[in-house]
Amino acid sequence: MTERFTPTSGDRFTPTPEDRFSFGLWTVGWQGRDPFGDATRAALDPVESVQRLAGLGAWGVTFHDDDLIPFGSTGTEREAIVKRFRQAVDASGLVVPMVTTNLFTHPVFKDGAFTANDRDVRRYALRKTLRNIDLAVELGATTFVAWGGREGSESGAAKDVRLALHRMKEAFDLLGEYVTEQGYGLRFAIEPKPNEPRGDILLPTIGHALAFIERLERPELVGVNPETGHEQMAGLNFPHGIAQAMWADKLFHIDLNGQSGIKYDQDLRFGAGDLRQAFWLVDLLESGYEGPRHFDFKPPRTEDHDGVWASAAGCMRNYLILKERTAAFRADPEVRAALRASRLDELARPTAGDGLAALLADRTAYEEFDAAGAAERGMAFEALDQLAMDHLLGVR
Amino acid sequence: MTERFTPTSGDRFTPTPEDRFSFGLWTVGWQGRDPFGDATRAALDPVESVQRLAGLGAWGVTFHDDDLIPFGSTGTEREAIVKRFRQAVDASGLVVPMVTTNLFTHPVFKDGAFTANDRDVRRYALRKTLRNIDLAVELGATTFVAWGGREGSESGAAKDVRLALHRMKEAFDLLGEYVTEQGYGLRFAIEPKPNEPRGDILLPTIGHALAFIERLERPELVGVNPETGHEQMAGLNFPHGIAQAMWADKLFHIDLNGQSGIKYDQDLRFGAGDLRQAFWLVDLLESGYEGPRHFDFKPPRTEDHDGVWASAAGCMRNYLILKERTAAFRADPEVRAALRASRLDELARPTAGDGLAALLADRTAYEEFDAAGAAERGMAFEALDQLAMDHLLGVR
Amino acid sequence: MTERFTPTSGDRFTPTPEDRFSFGLWTVGWQGRDPFGDATRAALDPVESVQRLAGLGAWGVTFHDDDLIPFGSTGTEREAIVKRFRQAVDASGLVVPMVTTNLFTHPVFKDGAFTANDRDVRRYALRKTLRNIDLAVELGATTFVAWGGREGSESGAAKDVRLALHRMKEAFDLLGEYVTEQGYGLRFAIEPKPNEPRGDILLPTIGHALAFIERLERPELVGVNPETGHEQMAGLNFPHGIAQAMWADKLFHIDLNGQSGIKYDQDLRFGAGDLRQAFWLVDLLESGYEGPRHFDFKPPRTEDHDGVWASAAGCMRNYLILKERTAAFRADPEVRAALRASRLDELARPTAGDGLAALLADRTAYEEFDAAGAAERGMAFEALDQLAMDHLLGVR
Amino acid sequence: MTERFTPTSGDRFTPTPEDRFSFGLWTVGWQGRDPFGDATRAALDPVESVQRLAGLGAWGVTFHDDDLIPFGSTGTEREAIVKRFRQAVDASGLVVPMVTTNLFTHPVFKDGAFTANDRDVRRYALRKTLRNIDLAVELGATTFVAWGGREGSESGAAKDVRLALHRMKEAFDLLGEYVTEQGYGLRFAIEPKPNEPRGDILLPTIGHALAFIERLERPELVGVNPETGHEQMAGLNFPHGIAQAMWADKLFHIDLNGQSGIKYDQDLRFGAGDLRQAFWLVDLLESGYEGPRHFDFKPPRTEDHDGVWASAAGCMRNYLILKERTAAFRADPEVRAALRASRLDELARPTAGDGLAALLADRTAYEEFDAAGAAERGMAFEALDQLAMDHLLGVR
Repeated sequence: MTERFTPTSGDRFTPTPEDRFSFGLWTVGWQGRDPFGDATRAALDPVESVQRLAGLGAWGVTFHDDDLIPFGSTGTEREAIVKRFRQAVDASGLVVPMVTTNLFTHPVFKDGAFTANDRDVRRYALRKTLRNIDLAVELGATTFVAWGGREGSESGAAKDVRLALHRMKEAFDLLGEYVTEQGYGLRFAIEPKPNEPRGDILLPTIGHALAFIERLERPELVGVNPETGHEQMAGLNFPHGIAQAMWADKLFHIDLNGQSGIKYDQDLRFGAGDLRQAFWLVDLLESGYEGPRHFDFKPPRTEDHDGVWASAAGCMRNYLILKERTAAFRADPEVRAALRASRLDELARPTAGDGLAALLADRTAYEEFDAAGAAERGMAFEALDQLAMDHLLGVR
Repeated sequence: MTERFTPTSGDRFTPTPEDRFSFGLWTVGWQGRDPFGDATRAALDPVESVQRLAGLGAWGVTFHDDDLIPFGSTGTEREAIVKRFRQAVDASGLVVPMVTTNLFTHPVFKDGAFTANDRDVRRYALRKTLRNIDLAVELGATTFVAWGGREGSESGAAKDVRLALHRMKEAFDLLGEYVTEQGYGLRFAIEPKPNEPRGDILLPTIGHALAFIERLERPELVGVNPETGHEQMAGLNFPHGIAQAMWADKLFHIDLNGQSGIKYDQDLRFGAGDLRQAFWLVDLLESGYEGPRHFDFKPPRTEDHDGVWASAAGCMRNYLILKERTAAFRADPEVRAALRASRLDELARPTAGDGLAALLADRTAYEEFDAAGAAERGMAFEALDQLAMDHLLGVR
Repeated sequence: MTERFTPTSGDRFTPTPEDRFSFGLWTVGWQGRDPFGDATRAALDPVESVQRLAGLGAWGVTFHDDDLIPFGSTGTEREAIVKRFRQAVDASGLVVPMVTTNLFTHPVFKDGAFTANDRDVRRYALRKTLRNIDLAVELGATTFVAWGGREGSESGAAKDVRLALHRMKEAFDLLGEYVTEQGYGLRFAIEPKPNEPRGDILLPTIGHALAFIERLERPELVGVNPETGHEQMAGLNFPHGIAQAMWADKLFHIDLNGQSGIKYDQDLRFGAGDLRQAFWLVDLLESGYEGPRHFDFKPPRTEDHDGVWASAAGCMRNYLILKERTAAFRADPEVRAALRASRLDELARPTAGDGLAALLADRTAYEEFDAAGAAERGMAFEALDQLAMDHLLGVR
Repeated sequence: MTERFTPTSGDRFTPTPEDRFSFGLWTVGWQGRDPFGDATRAALDPVESVQRLAGLGAWGVTFHDDDLIPFGSTGTEREAIVKRFRQAVDASGLVVPMVTTNLFTHPVFKDGAFTANDRDVRRYALRKTLRNIDLAVELGATTFVAWGGREGSESGAAKDVRLALHRMKEAFDLLGEYVTEQGYGLRFAIEPKPNEPRGDILLPTIGHALAFIERLERPELVGVNPETGHEQMAGLNFPHGIAQAMWADKLFHIDLNGQSGIKYDQDLRFGAGDLRQAFWLVDLLESGYEGPRHFDFKPPRTEDHDGVWASAAGCMRNYLILKERTAAFRADPEVRAALRASRLDELARPTAGDGLAALLADRTAYEEFDAAGAAERGMAFEALDQLAMDHLLGVR
């Protein structure tokens, strides 16, 4: 419908490849099948998706093996599909920065993949992943995302969590061994999620995944791929979690989308849902994250294909608006003064740079400390936050 | 601290009494006592609050009986306090549009007030309320809010809900009888909340309160006072709930604040929390609600008194920014076109204005209806929502 | 697998038709398709479901039109299907107490049915429902459930809630007119749900539905069909909500299942999820609800057909265990003493049976009331709740 | 009131010190002050608490510094208090297995302690903690719990999370240095919580805390102290999280209580709230955790002191009932068969014990794997879970 509003109208929020925006084939290609309804959109040819995404200003395209190569394809079919896709990618100027494996759609994975109770399913899941790693490397990907959406349970005895974590560790250790032996420059990024499609999923948050990684044989190969909406499904502040991942040098990739609170996984376009936290997330990412800005969203089922592209364009547009706004916030002298009034500069100073003994000897730190007096100092956070609001809303 | 940023700087978002903004004494007067910590701020003299609020551009001030007159004051003390308050209000130019009763702080209400198991507590609660109604009318209030924060339970047998609803109905019927007999022009507004301080509170949402009201003897005297944060504590879309209250002609008053999802009651300043829904709420209120814009928030415990006033000012400022933005959204011709593309105009048309028989006889409605064809029409909601985002963020 | 444990082993928790347990065809017939995965089970023939349910001790079977008659069937096909089903039902001894309409699976309903923006979709939805009402009556159903799962939105401008409620009212008024004109003895039961598959669904809780019903032309024809899990998705105490529905004489039907907190709709078997609240729900239902005990659950996707029947049997078994336990709780003299110690008997007494004037004149109610003294009385709820726990766990 | 029911009546669920049950002074001593209400109970003398807990069968007592020694006590007062407490503990036969520091009640900690923006507050917090460590060791404690309830923020710019984590690490590194230098046999246990009293708290879940610990200088000295209710506040499966802590050898201590879903922190007695998960938690703890069973609950504000002790007794009673039931579940031959039918035995087997090369060479693992066939195997989890339900409810 040509008369419809097109949000990307060539203004300063029009993306370019320098912005490093990437999309999964499964995002724009989602047909709208949900737990209560059939598909509302026809399947998209991956080649068309590549062309449209490039046209919108994206930089990269990503996929699950089964998004590109239908489950059960023969070797010949697979080869033809990959070749055609590769040509389309090359022609479009896009890159393939990340690939991932579908270990959740086929019924064989109904009880999990790396932690399925059935050993043969676990072995199959590993082999499916290993095969897909080869393809990822062939297409130039440097990050391999692992979302274990089926690793979990709905009832208490169905999964022995400690055993399951042993099996999960075994799987990542084997994958790490493989890429090391093959000399692949590929790193893994675990994507946490608290629930859905399982009642409770293992490694439910960024924290649980970060902790798990430390017990692997090659922790340096493995980081996290937080999805903003997944953290919100646990009611968590997603900029906080992602900041902890960055603090731990483990933010290997990121999935950006929108979510309206604790409920089913909505996968709204980026910016929808919690806009204020999206502002802080962009502020955070722009302060040190160099990887792809990957959108993992689902254009609502109400949309036709025009709506799909409007939604994809909106993800990038909203990121760029927020990027402009956070930059203005950080550059504003009044903000800098407000940050000092809130003593953010003091947070940057070591608490006891002079060491434990000096701290213990410092009577002003305890015996002579005027707690009541110190308690009277206001933190001035409300004025600071209103400045952020003014910048977000563009009224300064 | 004079060097701190003051968000109300005389720009076009500076409130005036015409904006009908009101604040509770308990909001700016909150001392910061929380479940895990002692007060961080000294008590505010209500007279000072009145003067400061007027200075910030507010229109009204509201209170619980005990906010103004300490629990247990003698009649003489009470008289003096009221007189002094009244003089301050008059001098400031503020009005007192609403009054409410504190039926939750004193330990006697630990199991509720109108629905306490103890009959003498219920009688006491009614008498405390009736006395406060007289004061409300004396001060010119037209709305009397009833928040039954202690009406509930933490365990299943502790409260027989059907009996408790009988007692709740009895209470509101008596209150209605009283104001009718006295000839008071006062209406009641029930404030729902799902939980906290009780494990589960009766009449937990706008819907439950609206349904309850229909069973009263004088339903016309009773409406609702939704608090935006309370609906969010149940994960509900608060503009939706408030729209249902308006549809039922029952939005008698409103409490505006901010909340970040399903957790303890945060009472952030308006605009903080879910900003996108705040946009839709202002859009809704400006489309037909004539009552006070009442802020029921708590300046965070980290703030000193300067921060309290910055926070109060921020509530009004954010409302005014959103009011400007929603007005621009509704006035934008491209938005109007987008609304038509999403067939909002069709939603305004009766489905079967021609009656049941005509509907049954219309073969195009069923036998000849092309469901598959109709299903292909996209709703174009994403483009519409991106227009709203652009207006909210001020990039159009 | 014959060696598997069968939970219904002929003990005292084996159901009989007197227990009035009913199941939807879509429950045991769910094939396990979820947002991230394909079906894990073959389709079940409705006739087989009827036979198996009867064999397990169920009393009734229910269905959506499309569960029984595939969407798009010709009139002849429809007739044959209905005839065969009716014969199976009759042969099995089951009844068909409730029927409902599928207004959510087909893509034409992607934006709703009775409140779709598209008027022709609304008309189609009404006709589909009217046709199905005829079938419901033909099969002897007395309750017609209406779940408006697609009536809602994901973004603010996409749905004008007040207009949508007008359309919703119009729809129920037309349905009420139809059954009245036809002389059908059929009542409607609205099933609320807060979200999923829409971001926010209209009439999100029992309360909102009860309030809506009061604005209909024929409110006496319409009640609610609460689903236990749906209330939990809003973090609400479901026995409380259902008690309010009973208090309003509006509990026309009930959907029993299990849910583990605020997340996607789990539809676990009854008893799973919040077991303590299930205890209180059975206690409540057995105190005055005469309708069907209808299970609306989904056997987890991990199960094969044997697991489906084990799960269905578990629903009934758990109800019967809880029924025994709540009866013992209510019969226990120590419980009765504990209820008096917690003054539940006082809650049953009118607060001011002597009228408003007497209350106002009673100085012991206010002027001479010893609030501090009254506050010292413990409510003894913990001892009472521990007695309930002991009965639930069977240790008394 | 002597006529009230006393739940601990000398049956087989009566605790003894061998059960290793401990309580915080702040639990039974909670006076019922909440965000909306004043205290409902008089203060308890810690010595009385010690005596009553010993009388109920507890094994240990724990405390925050300020629970025992009022904030601001002189050295002489402190000495006298500690001496008297120590005598009471010794006389009662209790032990002091854990001590913790109050870094949240005094207003000086309004913006945090180890991560407060104000450096002098951070130094004071460290000194307060160090002083309390000496007392902990003096009283024989082996675990030092650290709950950073004020380490967090309500708005985005108020806390730079990466800087705050640096400060948090600095604090724990200093504490570790101190106990090492002093030769104390004391280990630290971090207690995570997602929110309340701060809008978002740092290290919000078990996972985040476990991950943080790995970045410390002496990770071996630091583990976690999960509180069951805190994990539920993030909607997480708490037995899963605690299992991951055990898998990582980091379950140094545990706080047991009850919580009804995602809402404010309820601190119900153990067993209340999610009873089915409490069953799985006891099953898990009894399978390998040797530390204290510590109750961190708050007797509801409705209770008098009799109710306090009934509630404390209920915590222990419920644990013992669940312990009996989980033991019976694990011993039941039918359960063992059901576990095999659900292939839990296969989960215990390494997936690729034969190594990567063998896995890659195994054509049955991929090329010849019959995915469709494998997908047909039911997991039989529903039958297994119903067996667990039967054991929980005591009907087998």
